Amino acid sequence: MSKFPTDLSDDIIDNLRAEYKNESVRSFSPELEEILHKPVPVLDHGFVRVIDYMGTDASIVQAARVSYGIGTKKAQEDKGLINYLMRHNHTTPFEMCELKLHVKLPIFVMRQWVRHRTANINEYSARYSILGNEFYLPEIDQIARQSDSNRQGKSENAMEPIQAQEILDAIAGVQKDAYEKYSHLLDDMALTREIARTLLPIGIYTEMYWKIDLHNLLHFLKLRTDSHAQYEIRCYANVILDIVKKWVPYTYDAFVNYRQKAVSLPHHCINLINRALGGEKISQENSGLSKGEWQEFTKIFPLDK
Amino acid sequence: MSKFPTDLSDDIIDNLRAEYKNESVRSFSPELEEILHKPVPVLDHGFVRVIDYMGTDASIVQAARVSYGIGTKKAQEDKGLINYLMRHNHTTPFEMCELKLHVKLPIFVMRQWVRHRTANINEYSARYSILGNEFYLPEIDQIARQSDSNRQGKSENAMEPIQAQEILDAIAGVQKDAYEKYSHLLDDMALTREIARTLLPIGIYTEMYWKIDLHNLLHFLKLRTDSHAQYEIRCYANVILDIVKKWVPYTYDAFVNYRQKAVSLPHHCINLINRALGGEKISQENSGLSKGEWQEFTKIFPLDK
Amino acid sequence: MSKFPTDLSDDIIDNLRAEYKNESVRSFSPELEEILHKPVPVLDHGFVRVIDYMGTDASIVQAARVSYGIGTKKAQEDKGLINYLMRHNHTTPFEMCELKLHVKLPIFVMRQWVRHRTANINEYSARYSILGNEFYLPEIDQIARQSDSNRQGKSENAMEPIQAQEILDAIAGVQKDAYEKYSHLLDDMALTREIARTLLPIGIYTEMYWKIDLHNLLHFLKLRTDSHAQYEIRCYANVILDIVKKWVPYTYDAFVNYRQKAVSLPHHCINLINRALGGEKISQENSGLSKGEWQEFTKIFPLDK
Amino acid sequence: MSKFPTDLSDDIIDNLRAEYKNESVRSFSPELEEILHKPVPVLDHGFVRVIDYMGTDASIVQAARVSYGIGTKKAQEDKGLINYLMRHNHTTPFEMCELKLHVKLPIFVMRQWVRHRTANINEYSARYSILGNEFYLPEIDQIARQSDSNRQGKSENAMEPIQAQEILDAIAGVQKDAYEKYSHLLDDMALTREIARTLLPIGIYTEMYWKIDLHNLLHFLKLRTDSHAQYEIRCYANVILDIVKKWVPYTYDAFVNYRQKAVSLPHHCINLINRALGGEKISQENSGLSKGEWQEFTKIFPLDK
Repeated sequence: MSKFPTDLSDDIIDNLRAEYKNESVRSFSPELEEILHKPVPVLDHGFVRVIDYMGTDASIVQAARVSYGIGTKKAQEDKGLINYLMRHNHTTPFEMCELKLHVKLPIFVMRQWVRHRTANINEYSARYSILGNEFYLPEIDQIARQSDSNRQGKSENAMEPIQAQEILDAIAGVQKDAYEKYSHLLDDMALTREIARTLLPIGIYTEMYWKIDLHNLLHFLKLRTDSHAQYEIRCYANVILDIVKKWVPYTYDAFVNYRQKAVSLPHHCINLINRALGGEKISQENSGLSKGEWQEFTKIFPLDK
Repeated sequence: MSKFPTDLSDDIIDNLRAEYKNESVRSFSPELEEILHKPVPVLDHGFVRVIDYMGTDASIVQAARVSYGIGTKKAQEDKGLINYLMRHNHTTPFEMCELKLHVKLPIFVMRQWVRHRTANINEYSARYSILGNEFYLPEIDQIARQSDSNRQGKSENAMEPIQAQEILDAIAGVQKDAYEKYSHLLDDMALTREIARTLLPIGIYTEMYWKIDLHNLLHFLKLRTDSHAQYEIRCYANVILDIVKKWVPYTYDAFVNYRQKAVSLPHHCINLINRALGGEKISQENSGLSKGEWQEFTKIFPLDK
Repeated sequence: MSKFPTDLSDDIIDNLRAEYKNESVRSFSPELEEILHKPVPVLDHGFVRVIDYMGTDASIVQAARVSYGIGTKKAQEDKGLINYLMRHNHTTPFEMCELKLHVKLPIFVMRQWVRHRTANINEYSARYSILGNEFYLPEIDQIARQSDSNRQGKSENAMEPIQAQEILDAIAGVQKDAYEKYSHLLDDMALTREIARTLLPIGIYTEMYWKIDLHNLLHFLKLRTDSHAQYEIRCYANVILDIVKKWVPYTYDAFVNYRQKAVSLPHHCINLINRALGGEKISQENSGLSKGEWQEFTKIFPLDK
Repeated sequence: MSKFPTDLSDDIIDNLRAEYKNESVRSFSPELEEILHKPVPVLDHGFVRVIDYMGTDASIVQAARVSYGIGTKKAQEDKGLINYLMRHNHTTPFEMCELKLHVKLPIFVMRQWVRHRTANINEYSARYSILGNEFYLPEIDQIARQSDSNRQGKSENAMEPIQAQEILDAIAGVQKDAYEKYSHLLDDMALTREIARTLLPIGIYTEMYWKIDLHNLLHFLKLRTDSHAQYEIRCYANVILDIVKKWVPYTYDAFVNYRQKAVSLPHHCINLINRALGGEKISQENSGLSKGEWQEFTKIFPLDK
């Protein structure tokens, strides 16, 4: 019979790791092997755990060097080559690595996640199985007023704790009631699972296996660790970024520097910087930028100070 | 300000069609032009409407014939060539046609739909905008007991109408309560939209623009018009199949015959048929098939009669 | 029988355009309609011609606004929204437009082109048909010495015309001899086409139909109009960029400014610029950049002047 | 400096395997580990060698069972489940396995191979490096007359050995001459590599790293082990099919039975078979099939005997 959520106690994980132990002649990432199969907690009921991987920093270098036959292999050169590839958008060698994760996450996070199409997914199906009674409930400090100026983000004036608690109670109330009705319709009314689930809120947890190559994973991480991404998916993305650091440390460094913390400077902003470097005083008025662009620009280059 | 659900009255559609009218030298599908922009209703609040298209049956033939230079163009030959392409799995010419739809559908249907990765999607975002108070509520005859023998489908003993109504009332009750709480949290508590929505059931309606090439659309239709697909997505798939019939009639015929109503016969079943054609009496016992396979097989070839 | 290369005289094109003329209610691009079906010459025997398209700048805006219901439609706002989408890497609305081209190009260019995987291709097949006697022969000024410092590019000391002519004669000689043998093996020895073609040089011309969405097309153009791309594919990319300008002028402007002529500034270079803006004198020594990075950096921001 | 073709002597491979040896807790395929890194010869100068892999039959089962929590693990049930998945086109669990190959192959084979878009590729680049003097020359028995009835395949009347040798000599002559000119232009005329290579015939060998998931690999194998595929790519596909047998034996069996040796029976042919099973004598005349379809049909079901 169906068993959800997946039981992942320390004993089960230890047994899994012992069962899988074998001598292999594949590419090998020592730090990642340490955490294989072990769940890393995310949000109130979620987790990310690495199921499998293919390739390492050396595999990226190997693929890049197929153009030159078998090249040298000194670590320092590998790091330099990976920086070079990242800097010049030579993305195909990064596709030569692959990661497989087991993730437990709320459905509304899953709905954002699944938009990354170049990945393989097997999700727990609520047509065939019964979803567990686990819903995402934000922490109190995540509850904040809808900002007027920024319809996407959160106001800086967080509300009073008593109000926040009232909100959490309201959300939890709907969740509790919906799950009771779900159980009732399944157990007492013998309704099909595929229909019964339609009353469940999108804060309920689901699980999936997710497999993706490193290039597309980095693209996911670029978008989903960004401050504009919703807080909840950012929590998952940050955990995965830590995993990438263990797995392919040179690529991690290159990614952070050349992608995550890089900025794309449009042509007219290159000119602005060169005018400023030439000694001209640049203001929004003589910049030609809109108010929004000027704010974004001066957040990175504080010409207005 | 945000306006949802989209207003698509007859007047608005007529104006749209008048506004878009132009003389073009592109491939042209007369029957599809007739229904462009007009919503076709699906389920209780949903619709499918064609926004745009590229290519026709003739475009498929054109692409297939690039291998042979500019060939003949008689309609009968075109139909034969399209049958030939479909029969021999020459799929790339069908990728030369493209369809763009505007679809309104419940989130749980959207979650199945989005798994077809080779497509372009823009979905209404409940992070930025407020979802309307429209939920999917099945028709009474869609409410049926969960079958024991087939956990995926529905029992043939439909329940009593009075019970079915009780189920619908329970679902509608959760929907109503959830939407009231959603409105309250947004309007009175100033909660962010991205958090408030997490209490909404997956039966709520959303909208999207969906663009896909004909080859991948046919794959979608093969899977989603199948009797194993959930009823609700089948309703959408059948409406789209009718659209395909208007758009590319030769391809439609070839698809129905060579794909939708075709069967894939495994190697050991080819042998079985040849034994039966040779006069041997085939039973499950001497077939080597499992009970499940034998049932599937004799549903198509009633050797057990 | 097979007819290659495709005959595209002015008369044939005029007839095609007349034949396709219809009143349509689809999205419409006036400037692109003007050149539909007409080949634009590229290199010595190649061409690009637009066969079909779907969508315009307005379609991008429409898809982006599905999140907000049907919004306003003033042209100036459309331009601003497209700039916003491009600036913030909101790429999915650009996928809502599609372009179909007929391209004639040398096989070695085709081999680079086909690496862009998110596209639909139907190529002339030399297994089934006979390739025409048309090979790419560079113009004399494209013939240059292999640079030692830059193994990818061309030396700035172009060789003597007499040497260049000698090179062209050598290439043309191999092409001529190979095609004669090819014809001989087909006509006199009755060799299969699929084997006979294996002796043909990769400079021979082939043809394809190519269909791609606008987002992926812009990615192609970003990479293939870059100065590091091989000259020959750059010629095609530049012709297609002109086509994009006619088709979706707002998107074209946004692409040039925010993508093609933009630079991606790594994190440590942001710091460098801010140090320079703060009045510090930056040199390679105190920049922490390698010689290569310093050269790239000061080409854009001439701090060394 | 560039070194091509890659040196893969037994010693080098043994050292590689020793160097890579580690204790891992990943999914493990014992038979595949035996041949990791070792080249399997294909055609006259080519090879296929497995560089890395992710997953096994058990990983497919694991992904399929995520819908049901952690299920039972008996081998016999795993085999049955894999058959079930293959039979019902549940393809996503097969995407959970990944294979990475190093392949050496002629460019004209590469041109067919690269059409399989859902894969990752790093190919030896002749823009940056010098191609080695290795060309594909068919075996004498592969040389056959172009069939009139089947423009794609080969006649059954193979030609005289003396003619075949003449053909081989002609092909080899062009190859030899082209490579001499190539070397001359590079060494004596200092022509850029990217231009010099344009005179090389498409029978020359190249190398690539190729990474693909199992579902897409099986699709490749279905198409490329088919008798309609060109002989040369079939040689590669058959070697890879043997690799799949070692790697995922249950999946291999299911693939051969339910895909490779299965037939897709169109709707009107199901009816034909049922008429024949009902005792009716079926001929082309009363079948409604075209001559071509009748031939294909009776090759599988010899109703005409």
